[in-house]
Amino acid sequence: MAGGRPRPPRGFRDFPPEVMILRKRLLSRLERVFESYGFDPLDTPAVEYWETLSGKYGEEAESRLIWRFQDPWSGRWYALRYDLTVPLARFVASNPGLPMPFKRYHIGKVWRHEEPQKGRYREFVQCDADIVGSPYPEADAEIVSLAVDSIDALGLPGFRVRVNDRRLLAGVFEEELGFDNPLPIYRAIDKLDKIGVEGVRRELERLGLPGSTVERIMEIISWRGRPGEVLESVRRGYGSNEKVREALDHLEEMLSLADDKRVELDMSLVRGLDYYTGPILEVVLDEPRIGSVAGGGRYDGLVGMFAGRDIPATGVSIGIERIIDAGLELGVYSLDVKTVAQVAVVVLDRRYYRYAWEAARILRRGGLNVRIDLSRASGQVQRRKASRLGIPVLAFVGAKEAEGGFLTLYSAAKGERVAVPLGEAVKAVERLLPS
Amino acid sequence: MAGGRPRPPRGFRDFPPEVMILRKRLLSRLERVFESYGFDPLDTPAVEYWETLSGKYGEEAESRLIWRFQDPWSGRWYALRYDLTVPLARFVASNPGLPMPFKRYHIGKVWRHEEPQKGRYREFVQCDADIVGSPYPEADAEIVSLAVDSIDALGLPGFRVRVNDRRLLAGVFEEELGFDNPLPIYRAIDKLDKIGVEGVRRELERLGLPGSTVERIMEIISWRGRPGEVLESVRRGYGSNEKVREALDHLEEMLSLADDKRVELDMSLVRGLDYYTGPILEVVLDEPRIGSVAGGGRYDGLVGMFAGRDIPATGVSIGIERIIDAGLELGVYSLDVKTVAQVAVVVLDRRYYRYAWEAARILRRGGLNVRIDLSRASGQVQRRKASRLGIPVLAFVGAKEAEGGFLTLYSAAKGERVAVPLGEAVKAVERLLPS
Repeated sequence: MAGGRPRPPRGFRDFPPEVMILRKRLLSRLERVFESYGFDPLDTPAVEYWETLSGKYGEEAESRLIWRFQDPWSGRWYALRYDLTVPLARFVASNPGLPMPFKRYHIGKVWRHEEPQKGRYREFVQCDADIVGSPYPEADAEIVSLAVDSIDALGLPGFRVRVNDRRLLAGVFEEELGFDNPLPIYRAIDKLDKIGVEGVRRELERLGLPGSTVERIMEIISWRGRPGEVLESVRRGYGSNEKVREALDHLEEMLSLADDKRVELDMSLVRGLDYYTGPILEVVLDEPRIGSVAGGGRYDGLVGMFAGRDIPATGVSIGIERIIDAGLELGVYSLDVKTVAQVAVVVLDRRYYRYAWEAARILRRGGLNVRIDLSRASGQVQRRKASRLGIPVLAFVGAKEAEGGFLTLYSAAKGERVAVPLGEAVKAVERLLPS
Repeated sequence: MAGGRPRPPRGFRDFPPEVMILRKRLLSRLERVFESYGFDPLDTPAVEYWETLSGKYGEEAESRLIWRFQDPWSGRWYALRYDLTVPLARFVASNPGLPMPFKRYHIGKVWRHEEPQKGRYREFVQCDADIVGSPYPEADAEIVSLAVDSIDALGLPGFRVRVNDRRLLAGVFEEELGFDNPLPIYRAIDKLDKIGVEGVRRELERLGLPGSTVERIMEIISWRGRPGEVLESVRRGYGSNEKVREALDHLEEMLSLADDKRVELDMSLVRGLDYYTGPILEVVLDEPRIGSVAGGGRYDGLVGMFAGRDIPATGVSIGIERIIDAGLELGVYSLDVKTVAQVAVVVLDRRYYRYAWEAARILRRGGLNVRIDLSRASGQVQRRKASRLGIPVLAFVGAKEAEGGFLTLYSAAKGERVAVPLGEAVKAVERLLPS
């Protein structure tokens, strides 16, 4: 093995137990929320045919960000999935008999050929919930509510859900303001969070727009905040445009259901992916300022690209990787729990190993997670190992315990030591565990 | 999209909700058992550098079964992991400060470039538990006990755990019987389950062995069954061989701890993978006869290949894919549960949708999984959709319910219909759910 210690590939990560314990806890909370809305679990392969993924994400992903490879035997091209949405669209097309609306969640890894940097990985987990088959605002409202409940369940303190609609953007910028190619303007607007109002103004001026147009755009992107007021401003300004009116009616109905003080309508929200066709949403934390931690929207065209018929769809992706980074930074998450073990059976006298083994078995049968010494170390060393892992309860077995049929339990945190008969050990340990 | 309906790649599978619901239930039972022994969760990347995997599995895997691919930008070779054991060995070497023994479980996908056929896939889930850092029989005993508890937890009725030891095989066949290359003999023995005693005899004769040697081997592989008796036979036959004696002492201690009537010592157990160095084990079901559903053993050399120092290790891999196939065949598992949803809110009058939405929210807050109509279908159609998914409880909302502040609940299975105030709805639904 040349080059020193072996490593995971660059941009890929190992998740050691203390990280996995946190990740599993958070993902199971998310699953709980997804299932509470009746979303069902789905899994699709990590690998898809290249032609399944190609032409769905735009130029950059296609040419650079998708891991693709050729099977040397068949010559066929494959790719690692780049997200969970295109595989969903493919799945729906593969299963034409699926009962609609089809509501699924999918928690799984995706792969991107990113240049690795802080917070950006080549392999990461996405947590998506989507509704396929409903064109109605109540489906979008469910997605917004789900996003709110998800971030709440993850215990993050302050956040906002920003909402906009692709049809509003198109109606206002393309039809009313008459931009054939509004992309440079969207790009400028998209930087609002990073560069502020004056920064956006300068970017727009740099595009060579007349001063009155710049002022117009600056007014439009000032429409953000409580949905009722923003809807009113947009309706007053552009309510005569048909696309705008359609979007406003949809949003109004959707936001009257997804009613939460943290949901805002925000005309400066643009979002990247090409495939959105209706409402779009993004969740941002008050602190730390790390961009969005969830995003989604309606994409009525994508499933049809596979299925050959129009199938509406809307969904959200919870950015668990960023959320974990944020939660650790905020101190609401920690990596302090290093093991699932709750009890370490410390064998003080090897002659009584069978008794210790039996005690461990009894504790396990009682629902506890139990390690027993496997290294024939001294009692001292066993204690040190257990304490290094942070195992909360020690169960000592020596001649005294084995001959008397009991266990000596010890909790450092509670400063308590107690001898209990084997038959009462489960209850006694439960009492010593941190709540 | 030429060629009709899009599909997952050949040999790869989608897991629709009814399959995922079963898989998640079984995997969470396995996790429960793994954690009860104090094994901690670990995850490593799906992708490793090719040089990490190469030279670890033997010729066939290396030349044909590993999905490998070159990054066109860096020219570097990568591979999809072929199992979870080599990544574990790499992880241990990547983290020299890891507290020992390191006990981890890993449930994750692996990829093999198999020719797809019934029960053989190119992507499947492995469920591994390993102990790194203990050379002692108690570690192997823990692995055997874990295997027994795992299969028990999965609810499979009849099974046996077959145990042998690589050192026994080496001591007897290489040193005592003097075979320089015992592989053809091992291959013949390995077929015992499939071709029976006489079949093995014919295979051995076909190898051109003298009749007395064939009889000797036939006697050796007849040593299988209750550990005490088999140990005695082997000790009587070959106890003077040092390797054999070492293995017998180790097995004796291990089997006295992993004491279960379904554990058998079996001199005909060989197992394939090159890297085993001590005890080996395999779990086989009484019915159906589908080969082993779990396997493992001690591999003291593998971690050292990465770490540059000897690190003992032992573990087991639970073959969840085969177990699911077997459980479905036996009828102990079913795919009848098609959704996690427990309640379908049926909206009989669209004017009261907001009330229905609020009712759904209250039921969710009470811990229930609730779908609400998102397709503006008639009450009739909503009922049919709910019944097709097998959602056990319907909650009707019409003018009567909304104006009176209650819900009409209906369970087809219990043949019960009841009107309850919204505040009592959670309890009432719980009573109507199947137990």
